[in-house]
Amino acid sequence: MKKNSQLISFPDGITLESGYILNSFDLMIESYGELNESKSNAILVCHAFSGNHHVAGEDKELGKGWWDQIVGPDKALDTNKYYVVCCNNLGGCAGSSGPNTINPDTDKIYGSAFPQVSVEDWVKSQKMLMDKLNIPYWEMVAGGSLGGMQALQWTIAYPDKVKRSGIFAAAPKSSTQNIAMNEVARESIRKDKNFYDGNYHDHDVIPKDGLKTARMLGHITYLSEEHMDNRFGRRFQDSESKMNKGIDFEIENYLQYKGDQFSESFDANSYILMTKAMDNYDAGKSKGLIESLKNIKAKLLIVGFYSDWLYPPERGKEIQLAAMQNNINSSYVILAGDHGHDSFLFHTDMYSKIIRKFITS
Amino acid sequence: MKKNSQLISFPDGITLESGYILNSFDLMIESYGELNESKSNAILVCHAFSGNHHVAGEDKELGKGWWDQIVGPDKALDTNKYYVVCCNNLGGCAGSSGPNTINPDTDKIYGSAFPQVSVEDWVKSQKMLMDKLNIPYWEMVAGGSLGGMQALQWTIAYPDKVKRSGIFAAAPKSSTQNIAMNEVARESIRKDKNFYDGNYHDHDVIPKDGLKTARMLGHITYLSEEHMDNRFGRRFQDSESKMNKGIDFEIENYLQYKGDQFSESFDANSYILMTKAMDNYDAGKSKGLIESLKNIKAKLLIVGFYSDWLYPPERGKEIQLAAMQNNINSSYVILAGDHGHDSFLFHTDMYSKIIRKFITS
Repeated sequence: MKKNSQLISFPDGITLESGYILNSFDLMIESYGELNESKSNAILVCHAFSGNHHVAGEDKELGKGWWDQIVGPDKALDTNKYYVVCCNNLGGCAGSSGPNTINPDTDKIYGSAFPQVSVEDWVKSQKMLMDKLNIPYWEMVAGGSLGGMQALQWTIAYPDKVKRSGIFAAAPKSSTQNIAMNEVARESIRKDKNFYDGNYHDHDVIPKDGLKTARMLGHITYLSEEHMDNRFGRRFQDSESKMNKGIDFEIENYLQYKGDQFSESFDANSYILMTKAMDNYDAGKSKGLIESLKNIKAKLLIVGFYSDWLYPPERGKEIQLAAMQNNINSSYVILAGDHGHDSFLFHTDMYSKIIRKFITS
Repeated sequence: MKKNSQLISFPDGITLESGYILNSFDLMIESYGELNESKSNAILVCHAFSGNHHVAGEDKELGKGWWDQIVGPDKALDTNKYYVVCCNNLGGCAGSSGPNTINPDTDKIYGSAFPQVSVEDWVKSQKMLMDKLNIPYWEMVAGGSLGGMQALQWTIAYPDKVKRSGIFAAAPKSSTQNIAMNEVARESIRKDKNFYDGNYHDHDVIPKDGLKTARMLGHITYLSEEHMDNRFGRRFQDSESKMNKGIDFEIENYLQYKGDQFSESFDANSYILMTKAMDNYDAGKSKGLIESLKNIKAKLLIVGFYSDWLYPPERGKEIQLAAMQNNINSSYVILAGDHGHDSFLFHTDMYSKIIRKFITS
């Protein structure tokens, strides 16, 4: 598989939804496969909250791509046929301009000075990327969770630029409980002694503890209760491998481990920014969902997973129902999925088959 | 209503399930109504995780009792007829011996030196209280959530001392997800800069931030998703009443407020101790649930609430099924309840009627 990473600069900047003008910015992208001569085989993949541009294959630093089970040669999004592009979202922390990069206006790390961005801003910046890559339209835009929100927003914002949209384990807007959970995570970050209102880089520290707690909570919401029960149950952790003396159960040790790992690789400001973007997104904002989807020309594939309690299948159904009101060519499928919300990440025969069928329909 | 608060001392101490010997301890109790001559009208109420001995009526410091809708004159647990007793659990923070009281062996606040206790220990200490009060048996033991676990454990540990047991919004053991949520809460407390491994009193500080985050998370699990949606939806908080500048939505402000309030009144070590007791309880430990319930003589009333996602009705059903295997006189009811897990706290006509019927059956 031909794989290419690059940092693409946008020296003319972007005006954000909030009115804030970012004078210039960079997007770190990764692409797989090759754009054909007629430029008719491009797929944009949008990443979820803690994802990044590294979708498929192995990377020395980033390990295996987060959607490696779906994207690659002969996989559901077949890189022998399609040219797949993904960018680290603006405000992320894996190479694109964000709170942990240098602000060219001040030559200092942005920190808390990086502006809040929205799902709409991400789609706008991805459209600028598309123009830069000379891609006339996306054969498909696809994403799960927060990536699914972007896949939906693309069809609303640029109806002529998207042929198909794959919206997986997503919702047209976050629920009150979603927002509540994110706020607890943000609170734990903000109250970390090393957070310094987001300017921890100035103090040469990182709010690792708060980020760890935030991720531990997030992780619970990504897994299904059944998956947790089956995998860990009420088994006690053996004492030699306990991560700390407060631990009794395996599930505690697992969360401690996952939280630690995450807190070493993710940026706290990006965590806050990304969750805020997720909370604030509302596809039906101001007009209502049906009216907002009115101009969509893309075919939609909406997939929910029974075991997902973060964005349960009913949330995808809201999109489907609004699409049907607009006579949009739309399919809505609920799959089993063992992994709760994270099910969208993993290949199953049915999931891959449905995606494959959709893109060739 | 005759109401009486007192601190009762147990100078001979208690040997805990762990083998640890607490040389002496006190229990803060509150009672309502009067014990009749035949001593046949005593009810023990067991409190949930963050509850205390103050069940009913007004208290200058503690406000309205946590079960005031259920306990009082002419209420479901009618204090005109019954003598209702509740104690602050051992290890709590509302007057009974616990991490925030003085260790008589050292004349210093216990802090982290207070031993871990279990649901079994609570029931044992409540039995000692019963003996001290010269109560021959409980006409009923009742409690919700962690209080329901105690109500169940009473029937197992002292089958001859309980006529009826009311087990509300409870489970025979915590699920993996329950444990996981509690571990996130504990992690946020432990990592508070003012926690000092539980010895914050030595430093004249309190780990308020960690406790606040813990409670914010807990609060989400006590409310139903629907209740949250109906009450807050995605409404924005008006800017004058925002608790901090990071807040956008009403639900965020509400959680911030509730968390703040709680962190000023609860003890961090007790939080950890109580949640650990909850996580570790397993009514079917070692023998399995059916075998464990074999000797129960009490009638059981098990109530679950549809909107409860912390201990959903299926968890109460586990007790009912095991009870039926043992031919125990047991009723299992699922009620609507608007308040999620917290529904057990609130009067509804049906809920009160069922409790009233049960105690006179």
